[in-house]
Amino acid sequence: VSKRLEKFKTTIFTQMSNLALKHGAINLGQGFPNFDGPDFVKEAAIQAIREGKNQYARGYGIPDLNIAIAERFKKDTGIELDPEKEVTVTSGCTEAIAATILGLINPGDEVVVFAPFYDSYEATLSMAGAKIKSLTLRPPDFAVPLAELQAAVTSQTRAIFINTPHNPTGKMLTRAELEFIANLCTAHDVLAFTDEVYDKLAFEAEHISLASIPGMHERTVTMNSLGKTFSLTGWKIGWAIAPPHLTWGVRQAHAYLTFATSTPMQWAGSAALRAPESYYEELRRDYSTKKAILVQGLEDVGFVVYPSSGTYFVVVDHTPFGFGDDISFCEHLIKEVGVVAIPTSVFYLNPEEGKNLVRFTFCKDEGTLRAAVARMKEKL
Amino acid sequence: VSKRLEKFKTTIFTQMSNLALKHGAINLGQGFPNFDGPDFVKEAAIQAIREGKNQYARGYGIPDLNIAIAERFKKDTGIELDPEKEVTVTSGCTEAIAATILGLINPGDEVVVFAPFYDSYEATLSMAGAKIKSLTLRPPDFAVPLAELQAAVTSQTRAIFINTPHNPTGKMLTRAELEFIANLCTAHDVLAFTDEVYDKLAFEAEHISLASIPGMHERTVTMNSLGKTFSLTGWKIGWAIAPPHLTWGVRQAHAYLTFATSTPMQWAGSAALRAPESYYEELRRDYSTKKAILVQGLEDVGFVVYPSSGTYFVVVDHTPFGFGDDISFCEHLIKEVGVVAIPTSVFYLNPEEGKNLVRFTFCKDEGTLRAAVARMKEKL
Ligand SMILES: CSCCC(=O)C(=O)O
Ligand SMILES: CSCCC(=O)C(=O)O
Repeated sequence: VSKRLEKFKTTIFTQMSNLALKHGAINLGQGFPNFDGPDFVKEAAIQAIREGKNQYARGYGIPDLNIAIAERFKKDTGIELDPEKEVTVTSGCTEAIAATILGLINPGDEVVVFAPFYDSYEATLSMAGAKIKSLTLRPPDFAVPLAELQAAVTSQTRAIFINTPHNPTGKMLTRAELEFIANLCTAHDVLAFTDEVYDKLAFEAEHISLASIPGMHERTVTMNSLGKTFSLTGWKIGWAIAPPHLTWGVRQAHAYLTFATSTPMQWAGSAALRAPESYYEELRRDYSTKKAILVQGLEDVGFVVYPSSGTYFVVVDHTPFGFGDDISFCEHLIKEVGVVAIPTSVFYLNPEEGKNLVRFTFCKDEGTLRAAVARMKEKL
Repeated sequence: VSKRLEKFKTTIFTQMSNLALKHGAINLGQGFPNFDGPDFVKEAAIQAIREGKNQYARGYGIPDLNIAIAERFKKDTGIELDPEKEVTVTSGCTEAIAATILGLINPGDEVVVFAPFYDSYEATLSMAGAKIKSLTLRPPDFAVPLAELQAAVTSQTRAIFINTPHNPTGKMLTRAELEFIANLCTAHDVLAFTDEVYDKLAFEAEHISLASIPGMHERTVTMNSLGKTFSLTGWKIGWAIAPPHLTWGVRQAHAYLTFATSTPMQWAGSAALRAPESYYEELRRDYSTKKAILVQGLEDVGFVVYPSSGTYFVVVDHTPFGFGDDISFCEHLIKEVGVVAIPTSVFYLNPEEGKNLVRFTFCKDEGTLRAAVARMKEKL
């Protein structure tokens, strides 16, 4: 394995999903629903396949999907995009992240991230040879540490990478926090990368796109995907939105990472993004119920449950149960209790910082959530 | 754009396909069929979508597809693979290439490639910070320059990257050439990367996998995809086959480039790879007819047509028509004649070397091929 990837292990999602299968455990680990996506999106994919839309798409996306993405962004942020020059379709948000980092970051560039972070941020920054400055979001509220951030941004900083709503904590950045970041970016001429795949899963607060803060669109890459919002995590349709000069870098990397994304899936994506607002409202209603079941259940079991405003995750402190760290706790939980959660220590540069915290997802049907809670009540 | 990608332009395939649309020209450029893939593969995708196989696949591939790839490889090469440890499913062969290079090559490593090469080789090697040593395959036969190769491989060499059948020339490496490469690899402890996406499109010679040369499997990454063989270039199902220690590197990069590939498409892929031999025989029969039409046509038009043994491409010398270089020739061809070909100079480190050569594809229905030839006869 190349040096840039030497320190990384098999992704925790793969490890945990494999263990779930092996031990017949209920999987509240990796964030994929155990219910299916909406028929109108599935039928759009089927129609595209039947109609012979099966050859290479234009590298940066079929025109129809680029337009649908731009329209959705307009609705959400008020920003009018040029779908030809500011939208790049990728193979999931994971590829959008890789293309953004490899397309825009040079070896030695400093990039600020907030831990805990989705593991691909660190791995792709390492591929690009970036210097990672990691600031920690701390319980109970996982607020952005403003003074530390101010100190971290210097003339060496190339970009600040945020994620809101935030995986794994469910923290949503407030307008004040986003404005603070925006001010730093403009003052130091720094780029912003923002992963907003959970934007439609905002429960306790309003999602605010970083790009919508005045002055930010011109220096921001906004990344998103269909998977979470349409309960089709296996379809791998993502995108990056950025002004033309940044889109150029993203597209250049994308062209050589995957060239183009599955054509029939792109047609389905363009149907999905034209869903009426009521689709999203119903999705949130469903998830609110699931969330209430899981949060109440975890509290009843005896965890310290930290408030989660968005995403389909909640983070808890497992230390009331007396296991040394998150890994030992999760091992016990899988083998003795039959439930899978995600240890968070892998999402920090310094794993110590995550050792009290584990993440549960509520993107499962209610019966599954109740069954997991029942197992924990009985056996933990 | 990051420095590693600064020298690259919009991929020639995108440029040319866009120009084809703009000028209403017949597109014999980018290699995608203008006919559809087989129904049994399309129906398998549809069935998977309907059955709710729509969530994240295991990162390195659904077990069923990993097994189908291993079985196919066994049939083709006699090599028995461990599908769990030696096969990685990727988002097209392009991603297999990126994951192989980023997962196994360190900055400063020397990698030998043969020009003309598919442009992603150079771009991904540049992303990895590799030192590229390019050797040129020269007309009329595009034979591997053995003495130059011998001289190029040194203690600094980390890998030799080949492509057989070769895009754009249609050259197929002979057993003697493959053995020469194998000997160099073992003598200097060098890895081999081999892009064999056109393995089933072998017309004038038998395709030999580099991994099948004794001693080579343990040091070779073999890359392939479904797109060309199943006329579904837009589906983006590829894979990399390698011994476990190399697969580890490929998977680590893959995990952070795309994480996983579209789940329903993987189910379709596993159906496709279980096609009977007669499927491939019929494919070759069809393509032989198309090839004969195009080659005869190009000769009648007045090109020097170089023999192509495999792939669905032929390379010609355009200089009888008196245009300065391949780019000027292709521009004239699009604008004045209404036919798109691919200039080859972008596939060399030194563009001068490709200036006499352009590539045509015959992956189009016979009517289209005849119409393109007729336009060239009339207007060139
Ligand atoms: C490849 S897992 C992607 C993110 C996610 O679903 C998770 O954090 O569980
Ligand atoms: C992205 S184009 C991939 C290769 C191909 O089809 C071509 O060479 O035309």
